Amino acid sequence: MSVPEDHPRYRSLMVRERLADMVAKGLVTPTGLISHGRGEAFDYLMGERTLPPSLEAERAAAAYLLRAKNPVVCVNGNAAALDAKNLIALADAIPAKVEVNIFHRTEERMRLLIDYMTQMGGKDVLGTNPDSRIPGLTSDRALCTKEGIYDSDVILVPIEDGDRAEALVAMGKVVISIDLNPLSRTSRKATVSISDEMTRALENIIRFVNEMKGDDGLIESVIKDYDNAANSRALIDSICESLHEGD
Amino acid sequence: MSVPEDHPRYRSLMVRERLADMVAKGLVTPTGLISHGRGEAFDYLMGERTLPPSLEAERAAAAYLLRAKNPVVCVNGNAAALDAKNLIALADAIPAKVEVNIFHRTEERMRLLIDYMTQMGGKDVLGTNPDSRIPGLTSDRALCTKEGIYDSDVILVPIEDGDRAEALVAMGKVVISIDLNPLSRTSRKATVSISDEMTRALENIIRFVNEMKGDDGLIESVIKDYDNAANSRALIDSICESLHEGD
Repeated sequence: MSVPEDHPRYRSLMVRERLADMVAKGLVTPTGLISHGRGEAFDYLMGERTLPPSLEAERAAAAYLLRAKNPVVCVNGNAAALDAKNLIALADAIPAKVEVNIFHRTEERMRLLIDYMTQMGGKDVLGTNPDSRIPGLTSDRALCTKEGIYDSDVILVPIEDGDRAEALVAMGKVVISIDLNPLSRTSRKATVSISDEMTRALENIIRFVNEMKGDDGLIESVIKDYDNAANSRALIDSICESLHEGD
Repeated sequence: MSVPEDHPRYRSLMVRERLADMVAKGLVTPTGLISHGRGEAFDYLMGERTLPPSLEAERAAAAYLLRAKNPVVCVNGNAAALDAKNLIALADAIPAKVEVNIFHRTEERMRLLIDYMTQMGGKDVLGTNPDSRIPGLTSDRALCTKEGIYDSDVILVPIEDGDRAEALVAMGKVVISIDLNPLSRTSRKATVSISDEMTRALENIIRFVNEMKGDDGLIESVIKDYDNAANSRALIDSICESLHEGD
């Protein structure tokens, strides 16, 4: 499909085409397209921009990632297809490890995704040889590496499923989610729930990481002042305002 | 994927798997999965149930369809995949013609969809030999039949794109949309905007058709009393209430 560049929905239509193409290549699952659509609806309700509460969450995320002993950026098919470059740029900025972990796991898809992340500039992308399991999860999405997800203290999970987010919180980790749906189980369970489009969220977190790096006092005070529950309520209020503006 | 029947999201997970399967068969496009996801998000916000304003719209839809001289039920890939049987049951109950009309049109997909609708019980499913065009639309989605869409006075468009909904309204038709997003261009342009999951909407319209059939006085009064703009505002209020309940 050819879409003119001045089309008001140019970017979102291009992202859809890329995801559909990634399904053909085996990196994204067909049901991954459905999840993307759900995200789009919430992005639409937020006016396709970062709302102030989301920016607060992104600032707290940067602080937690900088304070971490073993931060990990977790990557699944949709996340890789949407913006591999910014996932890697964030991991480089912190620095953090990158691990591929997917719901519909096959060796072939794991290999495709790790190769893709490596082509896009990732170094030592983890996930090929899992030697640990996330407790409380059946199925292959429990598989992870000890040096990465298993031993992480702070973990960024863009576009995570609810069960896994919950299991990671139960392991005592600080879980930072990027999920456009502020009511999803992932958003409700995470320590820091970012409801924002993934590219916007990553670019904001990278900026905050660069601003705060080395300033331990600032990092501590950002974490101390952040209230995830209050922040989520403020976000829902903003969405309702935008729904009524649309009337 | 095997999902236990007692899973809280059993129905929605099964629908997702069916749609993914329909992509493999060529009836649904990959980007059709993304639209389905957007719909799911709005259904989620409505608590996956028919809200009172949606039921009002469904009653008005039944009245318009019964009063029509040449009512047509329009079917695209997603609609056929989601619930071909109820689309046909509604057309039989009114009675109305059925016409397949798709955005990403190829002869192969048209044939697959018409064959599928026929297998599911459709009689004389239109769309194979288009002899007319919807004015104001470029691209092949303008193609339609004169006896069906072109000469229809009332047209039901489940899961329609905004441009086409607008073009049909510009032709002077009564356009009844079924679109979970109450803010979409389709919902904003339609004469009767139903924001409800398609199967629930169709079953409600069929029930109203059976109740009102033959009662011309009732049909007229339902149409006279229906205010689509007020109804859409009431629906958005209900969604905001449910967002806050979710806090």
